[in-house]
Amino acid sequence: MEIIQSPQNKQVKEWKKLSSKKGRLNQKQYILDGWHLVKEAIQANESIKRFLIVPDSRYIDEFNEFNSTKAEVTYISSEVAHAISETPSPQGIFAIIMIDDSRNVLPSDLTGAWLLLDSVQDPGNIGTMIRTADAAGFRGVVFGDGTGDLYQPKVVRSMQGSQFHLELLQSDLTTFIVELEKNDIPTFGTELNKDAKSYNEIGKYSDFGLIMGNEGNGVQAKHLKLTKHNLYIPIIGQAESLNVAVAAGILMYTLKK
Amino acid sequence: MEIIQSPQNKQVKEWKKLSSKKGRLNQKQYILDGWHLVKEAIQANESIKRFLIVPDSRYIDEFNEFNSTKAEVTYISSEVAHAISETPSPQGIFAIIMIDDSRNVLPSDLTGAWLLLDSVQDPGNIGTMIRTADAAGFRGVVFGDGTGDLYQPKVVRSMQGSQFHLELLQSDLTTFIVELEKNDIPTFGTELNKDAKSYNEIGKYSDFGLIMGNEGNGVQAKHLKLTKHNLYIPIIGQAESLNVAVAAGILMYTLKK
Repeated sequence: MEIIQSPQNKQVKEWKKLSSKKGRLNQKQYILDGWHLVKEAIQANESIKRFLIVPDSRYIDEFNEFNSTKAEVTYISSEVAHAISETPSPQGIFAIIMIDDSRNVLPSDLTGAWLLLDSVQDPGNIGTMIRTADAAGFRGVVFGDGTGDLYQPKVVRSMQGSQFHLELLQSDLTTFIVELEKNDIPTFGTELNKDAKSYNEIGKYSDFGLIMGNEGNGVQAKHLKLTKHNLYIPIIGQAESLNVAVAAGILMYTLKK
Repeated sequence: MEIIQSPQNKQVKEWKKLSSKKGRLNQKQYILDGWHLVKEAIQANESIKRFLIVPDSRYIDEFNEFNSTKAEVTYISSEVAHAISETPSPQGIFAIIMIDDSRNVLPSDLTGAWLLLDSVQDPGNIGTMIRTADAAGFRGVVFGDGTGDLYQPKVVRSMQGSQFHLELLQSDLTTFIVELEKNDIPTFGTELNKDAKSYNEIGKYSDFGLIMGNEGNGVQAKHLKLTKHNLYIPIIGQAESLNVAVAAGILMYTLKK
């Protein structure tokens, strides 16, 4: 069995580049770290290009039993695993996944619930919102301009595999909101403004779009103008605001029929 | 004006120790980083021991105008600010706060809504839950055994000042749950179990205790046995679970009258 031993190896350097947006764009692939995510990718029939495995990883038996793909397996040393991983104690199992370019095409049927991200920045927030959208039974998440990159390692970690359960699209939000409204699918903006509608007074919906905004600046005014309603969550105590992923969770579970 | 220039200065080394639990326990103080938090501490009449300020911080005029305390001001270099701070671009304004030992005493009147943390680990989750409890109008948060330390820098950062608005107690959770139930104040556990009660079927309350559990293991069985009801949030999609801070947000806003 050939094992790549050195973090200085040329291929290892290429994999390390996948932690940057530039590297992912150039190579059109991203990396999954850990057995839970690798397993989800196999289950979801993702285009897996290659597995990277430390031969004495404690997940190797489970992997060999579960893996039904023909993707190549490359063995790496524990030192290489530490070089690639962004976690302090990697499980020694990775998958390199081809990035799907079809994310920029708008679906012709827009029914279902959509979460629209308007310049959300923090990768932990983005990943957590995608995981919550999955749990709440949403159809997809739309990445508007200025929103952090879907495939950065921290987003991938906090999504916990939900990218395989949802439609993740990249779109200009103005276009997407207008398209939903044209199809009689209501859109809801969110703002920290007591003159907006309280979030629990508009009922439940099967088909709708919910827009969450940037951590500091909220949803852009040009988007708030296009929506059916703009909602706010009352602040009862003295906090100035809610964390955006928490607010998104409250809204998704309240609005989804 | 005397300015501490070197990160090697003896005092600076003591302040740096406040990023560890041991350091905070030894010195009985913790550190606030940034103008927003320092301002909240002044407003809340916290026992501020000392301010640390970089003379050309852009918040210095606002600080001088707003500061009504007699706490000593120590000037530090930007290099020292970087050594003390855990953020990449510190604002150059800090406060050293005395830790309040009264947190271990149970209040005699237990009315109001309480969030009980059962071995919650991630500092971002802890801080976000405290911030949400504040926003939702809770009275306080109880730190059970095994829950992360309240004054670690990441918790302090994600609380965003909510520690000054809520009662934060340290208590054995069994004692606290029994005490609430004795006073006819219902307690609600949470579990990932479809046989538990759905969270939106039990109505709204002014006085109650809500228990959130460890990220991996949930609320301990010994605590679930003591509650009035145990609740679950239905997972509609394919996600395995919700992030604990998101789940806490949904529950707090749903249950609080």
